[in-house]
Amino acid sequence: MSNEKPQAAPASAVLDRFYGVIPAGGVGTRLWPLSRAAAPKFLHDLTGSGSTLIRATYERLSPLSGDRVMVVTGAVHRQAVRQQLPEISNKNLVLELEPKDSAAAIGLAAAILYKRDPQIIMGSFAADQVIAPVEVFQAAVREAVHTAAQGYIVTIGIEPTHPSTGFGYIRAGEQLRVAGAPSARSVVEFVEKPSADVAQTYLDSGSYSWNAGMFVAPVDLMLKHLEANEPVLYAGLMEIADAWDTTRRREVVRRVWPSLPKIAIDYAVAEPAAAAGDVAMIPGAFSWDDVGDFAAIGRLNPAAENSNLTVMGEGARVYSENATGIVVSDTKRVIALIGIEDVVIVDTPDALLVTTKEHAQEVKKAVEHLKASGDTDVL
Amino acid sequence: MSNEKPQAAPASAVLDRFYGVIPAGGVGTRLWPLSRAAAPKFLHDLTGSGSTLIRATYERLSPLSGDRVMVVTGAVHRQAVRQQLPEISNKNLVLELEPKDSAAAIGLAAAILYKRDPQIIMGSFAADQVIAPVEVFQAAVREAVHTAAQGYIVTIGIEPTHPSTGFGYIRAGEQLRVAGAPSARSVVEFVEKPSADVAQTYLDSGSYSWNAGMFVAPVDLMLKHLEANEPVLYAGLMEIADAWDTTRRREVVRRVWPSLPKIAIDYAVAEPAAAAGDVAMIPGAFSWDDVGDFAAIGRLNPAAENSNLTVMGEGARVYSENATGIVVSDTKRVIALIGIEDVVIVDTPDALLVTTKEHAQEVKKAVEHLKASGDTDVL
Repeated sequence: MSNEKPQAAPASAVLDRFYGVIPAGGVGTRLWPLSRAAAPKFLHDLTGSGSTLIRATYERLSPLSGDRVMVVTGAVHRQAVRQQLPEISNKNLVLELEPKDSAAAIGLAAAILYKRDPQIIMGSFAADQVIAPVEVFQAAVREAVHTAAQGYIVTIGIEPTHPSTGFGYIRAGEQLRVAGAPSARSVVEFVEKPSADVAQTYLDSGSYSWNAGMFVAPVDLMLKHLEANEPVLYAGLMEIADAWDTTRRREVVRRVWPSLPKIAIDYAVAEPAAAAGDVAMIPGAFSWDDVGDFAAIGRLNPAAENSNLTVMGEGARVYSENATGIVVSDTKRVIALIGIEDVVIVDTPDALLVTTKEHAQEVKKAVEHLKASGDTDVL
Repeated sequence: MSNEKPQAAPASAVLDRFYGVIPAGGVGTRLWPLSRAAAPKFLHDLTGSGSTLIRATYERLSPLSGDRVMVVTGAVHRQAVRQQLPEISNKNLVLELEPKDSAAAIGLAAAILYKRDPQIIMGSFAADQVIAPVEVFQAAVREAVHTAAQGYIVTIGIEPTHPSTGFGYIRAGEQLRVAGAPSARSVVEFVEKPSADVAQTYLDSGSYSWNAGMFVAPVDLMLKHLEANEPVLYAGLMEIADAWDTTRRREVVRRVWPSLPKIAIDYAVAEPAAAAGDVAMIPGAFSWDDVGDFAAIGRLNPAAENSNLTVMGEGARVYSENATGIVVSDTKRVIALIGIEDVVIVDTPDALLVTTKEHAQEVKKAVEHLKASGDTDVL
């Protein structure tokens, strides 16, 4: 201890401030009928790895954070999340009485952690993303923590592999000089999902990366921007945080949470913070997938050799003849496919989806239609 | 009665000799998983009429035959057939202990009816065909009965609408002069399913019609040809027929039926009879469908107006968006179809088929595969 330089904290001390936060929300409508309100995307093993997405997210973070991991999820998922993550203590399982969008979810985590220790650097990573290799991701997070310690909200930008119109983008600025974070850059702005033409110019410029919603930041800096932009939300979250580690938690949550405004963290914190020059970026040179639709499941679970058909599901009994595409089976039924190409079949006990990879994005429409027509038993 | 002409039986007397026979066999493999061993094609309503195919067959015949209708089916279908045709008495429900092909089934009906009354003219019509208009069919059968009374085995030939390679053909000869049967013609020969080229020449010639396996004949003439061509089968059937309307029925059937040779009625009777000049034909100017595959179900159940999707099934809950084809639902599950063309989906509690109209014929392969792989629970 006597060898420590007082003027600069050693790398290990900076990393000791890290606290993982896993927001686990979002039904994953485009993965219906596999993913649904009662069994959202993050509770499924969509990669054939044997782990659910939330478990894989935890296992990516825990080598960095140890047991300092907080999960924010819907109250209805309490049991399922406990089962997936038995390591999470009651005080680190934040249950939303109702969905209030990402600023409330991530903001509450920041507020609770701030009350415990204002030095904490939180890292928020959604529960339903697929990342590999894990080591490259972890190296990026380490750089992000070092950069955050310099007073930045740090996002990890995903190197775009194609001109996607389905993601928001991050426009990087100049290189930053941060010890322990050689690839850190400033962020000029966050931009919304672009048109195809614009996406192509982003890709060509080399200055844009995909916004995967990963944020690593000192909790006090998160809260400072939240207070400036969303004072009502901030006040409510601080009131809940005050009561969190006390016997008043339940009463205060029940009273305050329903009154909170719904807003995305991007609008409440990230974009205004970028405008204020407080956002930095670490490029993420790992492969990343948000498993946005069934076409993603095909990518993440390549077909067996000598086959163009990806089959997922433990009990799957699939017979195919000249068929290509994806079958996700959540039943023990025999499924026979004959002479059909690029099909997507999702077979569950009470609902069946048949579409194509090309139309996988439109599954959302079916869900909206079913909701409108009152067929909510299968949503 | 005193006005009857003794030299020629009046038309009514000829028609009084008619006895309907309905062979109800065949699983309808190409309609799997809807049609299967336990619930073959003839026990389904495949036309949306509200009647099963066997019930519709009975109702087509009974205006001609009254209660003189005999059904030959598998012993396992006894209850289902009784439920569909409560009018059929025990003595007219012929149960096969095991399938023995059409010569044994139709031959046994002929033998039993012969023992009761050698003057009977039987008319054999499979239980799983769809025919309209019924009146045109019945007029053809009346002509066939009049022609049969002149000592012919009479088939009703279906006017071909396209050069099908899926049916056998009947080659007609000269016009016959038969009172009550102005359209009767002799038959030169029966020919097997042709190649596409040959089928086209058949169609162009105007002399060929489809063989729908409809036979109207004096029972003694049927048995004469059966005896000549298949003496072992004939002897066995006559032994069973001797015992049929006695208390020995059960014992004799159990002993003799399993030993009978398997052969199609075409080889055992129709083809040799044609060679002997004993076969005539009535052209059937009605529409006829043997519901050979799911494409047929699409033809027989046109889609609702403003839709290109045919949906069958009482409990069907189908949502579709830019989808065309056929859905047959035997469950209450929600089925969502998005952006998929000419699809065929058959949804049953334990098996699901997804194919296209174009590949509907290949369903048979799937069934063969499932049989080979031991998945017989769904066959």
